[in-house]
Amino acid sequence: MEPALPVFSQAEVSKHGSLEAGVWVTFRGGVYDIGEFVAMHPGGTRSCWRREGPWSPSGRLCELEMDPEDQARQRAVEPSDPYSGDPQRHPVLRVNSAKPFNAEPPPSLLGDSYITPSAIFFKRNHLPVPRVDPASYRLRVEGLPRPLSLSLADLKGRFPKHTVTATLQCAGNRRSEMNAVKQVKGLNWGIAAIGNATWSGALLRDVLREGGWGPEAAAVAGGGARHVQFEGLDADASGTTYGASIPLNKALSEEGDVLLAYQMNGEDLPADHGYPLRVVVPGTVGARNVKWLGKVIVSREESASHWQQNDYKGFSPGTDWDTVDFKSAPAIQELPVQSAITQPADGAVLERDADGEVTVRGYAWSGGGREVVRVDVSLDGGKTWQVARLREGDGEGEEQGEAPPPPPPPGRAWAWKLWEVGAPLPPGEQQVEIVCKAVDNSYNMQPDSVAPIWNLRGVLSNAWHRVRVTVRED
Amino acid sequence: MEPALPVFSQAEVSKHGSLEAGVWVTFRGGVYDIGEFVAMHPGGTRSCWRREGPWSPSGRLCELEMDPEDQARQRAVEPSDPYSGDPQRHPVLRVNSAKPFNAEPPPSLLGDSYITPSAIFFKRNHLPVPRVDPASYRLRVEGLPRPLSLSLADLKGRFPKHTVTATLQCAGNRRSEMNAVKQVKGLNWGIAAIGNATWSGALLRDVLREGGWGPEAAAVAGGGARHVQFEGLDADASGTTYGASIPLNKALSEEGDVLLAYQMNGEDLPADHGYPLRVVVPGTVGARNVKWLGKVIVSREESASHWQQNDYKGFSPGTDWDTVDFKSAPAIQELPVQSAITQPADGAVLERDADGEVTVRGYAWSGGGREVVRVDVSLDGGKTWQVARLREGDGEGEEQGEAPPPPPPPGRAWAWKLWEVGAPLPPGEQQVEIVCKAVDNSYNMQPDSVAPIWNLRGVLSNAWHRVRVTVRED
Repeated sequence: MEPALPVFSQAEVSKHGSLEAGVWVTFRGGVYDIGEFVAMHPGGTRSCWRREGPWSPSGRLCELEMDPEDQARQRAVEPSDPYSGDPQRHPVLRVNSAKPFNAEPPPSLLGDSYITPSAIFFKRNHLPVPRVDPASYRLRVEGLPRPLSLSLADLKGRFPKHTVTATLQCAGNRRSEMNAVKQVKGLNWGIAAIGNATWSGALLRDVLREGGWGPEAAAVAGGGARHVQFEGLDADASGTTYGASIPLNKALSEEGDVLLAYQMNGEDLPADHGYPLRVVVPGTVGARNVKWLGKVIVSREESASHWQQNDYKGFSPGTDWDTVDFKSAPAIQELPVQSAITQPADGAVLERDADGEVTVRGYAWSGGGREVVRVDVSLDGGKTWQVARLREGDGEGEEQGEAPPPPPPPGRAWAWKLWEVGAPLPPGEQQVEIVCKAVDNSYNMQPDSVAPIWNLRGVLSNAWHRVRVTVRED
Repeated sequence: MEPALPVFSQAEVSKHGSLEAGVWVTFRGGVYDIGEFVAMHPGGTRSCWRREGPWSPSGRLCELEMDPEDQARQRAVEPSDPYSGDPQRHPVLRVNSAKPFNAEPPPSLLGDSYITPSAIFFKRNHLPVPRVDPASYRLRVEGLPRPLSLSLADLKGRFPKHTVTATLQCAGNRRSEMNAVKQVKGLNWGIAAIGNATWSGALLRDVLREGGWGPEAAAVAGGGARHVQFEGLDADASGTTYGASIPLNKALSEEGDVLLAYQMNGEDLPADHGYPLRVVVPGTVGARNVKWLGKVIVSREESASHWQQNDYKGFSPGTDWDTVDFKSAPAIQELPVQSAITQPADGAVLERDADGEVTVRGYAWSGGGREVVRVDVSLDGGKTWQVARLREGDGEGEEQGEAPPPPPPPGRAWAWKLWEVGAPLPPGEQQVEIVCKAVDNSYNMQPDSVAPIWNLRGVLSNAWHRVRVTVRED
């Protein structure tokens, strides 16, 4: 018999979202306190996830029960509400939209962990979360010499399981900085609509080949097939489902690593992340990583969906809603180089450490498998720069002085890098503008300022990230 | 009998480098006047090259002989000079260094032609131009299950001929803008150390496979081979040759289009561009496109050459020659997104056209096969922007209203795009700062300013390009 566990209310959980109070995370009806590990490990929860597997209850992870009344209350408020089937979410998330649910974690928590815990990984839903019965679920694959209908058992049993650590980022990450220049249309994301997870599943490439596709077949039989479309099972009242597509060569490439993923961080996909199956397209904007995947279609044309055709595209700062022609811009696929400061927070009041330094930490990533090779940090608004220390991989072994893991193969750097720097400051109280910018291995740089990349939809916000802090007198 | 042709001295040719005087180009002992076509075609010489093949003498191209005394004088000055074997060059080139020869064309001429004529294509030599006897020439290919020794006839006869239109850019293009911030070490290139040409030859991939290499062999036999090294036949006094390397996966990829090229713009490679054989690595910095190619080596390590290890790398603006650690940065391979204004010139005095507009033209390109999808132009220093018209392909047919050519396959946009915009200006004499910035299909942008990307070697200079002009009272 398992010992009885204490029961906590949602209100109680809400109070635990900081290092001081403990960091409580709800997951599948359980409450987990990860605060101990955040505090114990300079690298945050990274080591813990790696050593024990994410979310595995253990002597060190305190599994607690969530109050069933809370669960019931969350679920049953409006049975006619299409969102009534949505899952519970962790209260530490900052909610940008409740229906559909869109939320991001606190930056400090995000930047603490190389692998982002699923519960705090940003949620970006366009529609209600569909409830999918895993027993009757079938993935249909069309546009092939041999169309397929695959059960979850088929996907798990007939194709090798492939695991990729990949960062997903919403096209609208950091949109709030564009809103500060001039109002755009879209959810007001901060800097945390990005996360890094391990994803496991079948390679889309293997599934397409099972259906008779391949480089040779594409040339002979395909007659111009150039895209792979994905349809979600999430739908609006009229039955229109979410959809997107990617270029066929990304799907077929041996180096593309496109997954039909059934696991996130070593467990079944959470409901908010596409249970039971989603596409993971490493290096590609979140919007193409279709969740609750119902159908895959190899086709001559891109997806006809609204989100492929008339959304998720970039425009010139001079383009407005009267003049925009969505056909004139390509659908966003690979994202540009990005970085942000997760610590300290904007407006924070800081003290120097024993070395007279302030510690600055953050994340950096680039699309298309391009590896981040350098992050520059400035404490004077961008006049002078120092180079941050990149924390390779999950930092496992780093603390024991072991060699870092080998770099990813060229063009397959799908995961972000966390970075930190101890920056010396002259004595005396002062206002400091901290800035970061990353460089990837194509030596693409982030643009200096937001206004010249402003666009009416507020996507692709990747200017230098700036936080203004006060450093206190010693 | 061919009719006798007039003979021109080098001094006479030098006078013809403008639309007014005619644009004379020397090539293989002949002098060609391309001015007529520059003037006749709004798109410059583009149509001409395409229709008649580059440099083919015709009724419309005026073939003239160059003064043999000039030729002799250029060659024979110092027989002991290692550079005495260097070929003649067109006098319109701006010479950054005579020995080794480094020169670039006038921007206005560069921006006028989708295909850059070989004679004015930037020259970037590290050493004297070697004289190679095509009859005895052999390319050695090593690090393979079956090492190869290939004559020119082998390369032309045993492998399919593959033609690619690709832009090459020197890592130091636009270095002069970095020098304006703070002095760097390197040749003071303007904006024209870039050019676009058609290259024909054998695919490196095919040659490596002939030697027994391939994705399968690489995994089994290779045991960690990850690079392809190239050695030039150009050498210094000690016999050290120029060398560089690229990642093996770029060389092996079906989509990499890496050529062992024996033709440029439809003719044998000119001496300055690597006769009889060079590597063309589309999407990759000029320095890896090794000329006068002597040897190809599949290897575990990158090239040990100075130019791979201790040059052609990017660093933080805060890094100086006392602190630089060349091992800390990756060798430049793919280049970041780039654009520049070829017309008007900085400091020009302009008049509006009949529509009250000034015409701005330029080039835009990105590394790694990423297609340029938009160029923004500002006439107020970057406060407001309008979108330039991209001239797809070589513009052939554009004037006849035909449909533009299909876009390049994803990830294989190797060629630049020329662009232009007619920008309205309020009446009255004024100083105008014209700015351009390009966006590629990974939505990477150019950084706003030079200082934050300044680096001690002055490479990767891709900030917004700015020219300051005076617009005259009507």
